[in-house]
Amino acid sequence: MANRFDLPPEFSLIARHFRPLAGPGALELGDDAALLTPPAGRDLVLTADAMVGGVHFLPDDPPDLVGRKLLRVNLSDLAAKGATPLGYLMTVSAPRGTPDAWFAGFAAGLAADQAVFGVSLLGGDTTATPGPLSLSLTIIGHVAPGAMVRRVGAQPGDGIWVTGTIGDGALGLAVAQGRLADPSGHLRDRYRLPQPRVGLAIAGVASAGMDVSDGLVQDLGHLCRAAGLAAAVEAARVPLSEAARAAGPGWLATCLTGGDDYELLLAVPPAREAALAQAAHAAGMPVTRIGRFHAGAPGVMVRDPTGREISLERGGWSHF
Amino acid sequence: MANRFDLPPEFSLIARHFRPLAGPGALELGDDAALLTPPAGRDLVLTADAMVGGVHFLPDDPPDLVGRKLLRVNLSDLAAKGATPLGYLMTVSAPRGTPDAWFAGFAAGLAADQAVFGVSLLGGDTTATPGPLSLSLTIIGHVAPGAMVRRVGAQPGDGIWVTGTIGDGALGLAVAQGRLADPSGHLRDRYRLPQPRVGLAIAGVASAGMDVSDGLVQDLGHLCRAAGLAAAVEAARVPLSEAARAAGPGWLATCLTGGDDYELLLAVPPAREAALAQAAHAAGMPVTRIGRFHAGAPGVMVRDPTGREISLERGGWSHF
Repeated sequence: MANRFDLPPEFSLIARHFRPLAGPGALELGDDAALLTPPAGRDLVLTADAMVGGVHFLPDDPPDLVGRKLLRVNLSDLAAKGATPLGYLMTVSAPRGTPDAWFAGFAAGLAADQAVFGVSLLGGDTTATPGPLSLSLTIIGHVAPGAMVRRVGAQPGDGIWVTGTIGDGALGLAVAQGRLADPSGHLRDRYRLPQPRVGLAIAGVASAGMDVSDGLVQDLGHLCRAAGLAAAVEAARVPLSEAARAAGPGWLATCLTGGDDYELLLAVPPAREAALAQAAHAAGMPVTRIGRFHAGAPGVMVRDPTGREISLERGGWSHF
Repeated sequence: MANRFDLPPEFSLIARHFRPLAGPGALELGDDAALLTPPAGRDLVLTADAMVGGVHFLPDDPPDLVGRKLLRVNLSDLAAKGATPLGYLMTVSAPRGTPDAWFAGFAAGLAADQAVFGVSLLGGDTTATPGPLSLSLTIIGHVAPGAMVRRVGAQPGDGIWVTGTIGDGALGLAVAQGRLADPSGHLRDRYRLPQPRVGLAIAGVASAGMDVSDGLVQDLGHLCRAAGLAAAVEAARVPLSEAARAAGPGWLATCLTGGDDYELLLAVPPAREAALAQAAHAAGMPVTRIGRFHAGAPGVMVRDPTGREISLERGGWSHF
């Protein structure tokens, strides 16, 4: 009788929950690697993000939202580069005894968002960990050659634009921590489930860009340093949701410096504002000019409606 | 005075340790994504692996060896697919307070292996974790269109071939755990630092292949299931290192079923054995035929020199 071992539980877990997510090139997750024929004549855009239980999501967050957030924060990076998503690889390090229902919910969230954003799973790895759930996702997209929107490239006089509203993610965290009321549930939802701006055609429109994930002021500081420019932001122009406005002016600094917005932050030359408006209209995504870049030492100045500078204690979020 | 925040420690950590690893397309790790122009007319091969402290490496393992192992286990997957490595993305989730010297050593190990294997860092993410160090690496390689060596493809009569020696990794773990003596240090070194078989030209030679990472018998079982074939292995033909032979016959089952070999396991038709020998000679890598595939229910039969079946309690390693 030959050795016909049952496959260990790791394999059935992958077969049950992750194989249904596998797209073309994933070889049904039955091989050691995925096979991808890159779209001819396109550049590839690649980015990776890690998410850890207790750091990037809360232990009792619904697993489908954890899966969707993991995918969406990476989709947001691609959107900020003007890239079209292709597929992703994912590693999952889970505590022994993680309930099967957790994996089922996690995979269901990914499946839902794969349908929304037109991506599929290419491959990955599943391991055990004595620590909290640790997730890592690498996403691959494509752009026309030379068309990737970079952090570097803003010019003096370029408008500073953002999509959507700023601060909801940071306020949503405050809600989850019991520090802020959220009668509509809008803030909590925005913290739990980013809305990546996939589909906003910024290639050839924005002179520079990134997504706002670590706080508007800190992230704008990155564009300033990359360009060797200063940025002047009018606080009154920064678009806030109704729920954020309802929180009151005491939360403005949190909105300006908190993380988890996953909106796009763009430098757009005045001559291309019409093109941006057209792209925003086509995608059904609001865009707002909140200030301008100008010559000067790299840094971010935020002014209140009277022209006075708003002093901020910190620019954004750091993990160490 | 504008808000000119110092960059948080996360950024200086990346600049100090990881930016020197950045290759073409990584944009000096100063953007949100990497930019890769894929080699024209080639397929891409992508794979990802996670490594967790206390699970895949020991807490007191030297950090340079941890970095090299992380890269090498992924290089081994590419080698098993016949792919040439291009570059990698990596996420590092580290406990707060991880000493700077740890990151310096980890990066030094990666730098050394980047030079050995001709790859570079494209991008990634660094975060904190309340748990053990959690690493994830996604590697990208390329092959001629249609030439990726798959798990599926073995034919009846194909030889079962392995590179190098089998079992040293599993015995090395036993050494590290104090269960086995290792006067030469060979076993411990093989556990700590896999030798991926990058450069063995198996595309067009092997009809199927994978690397041995979870145990020879279990991994051979994967090739059997993919092909719908049985495998007959002659234990006496399985190449063992001097150190493994010195451990004695009581450790044979560990060699056959233990993990962490990172040798290649290949199905090669008799007509291509000469081509394999030529490729092995050119790469300076030993290859050994340990058995053959034949028609039959998928499974692995290992026989001792008298022809009697060796019964094995388990096929390999599972994380759950």
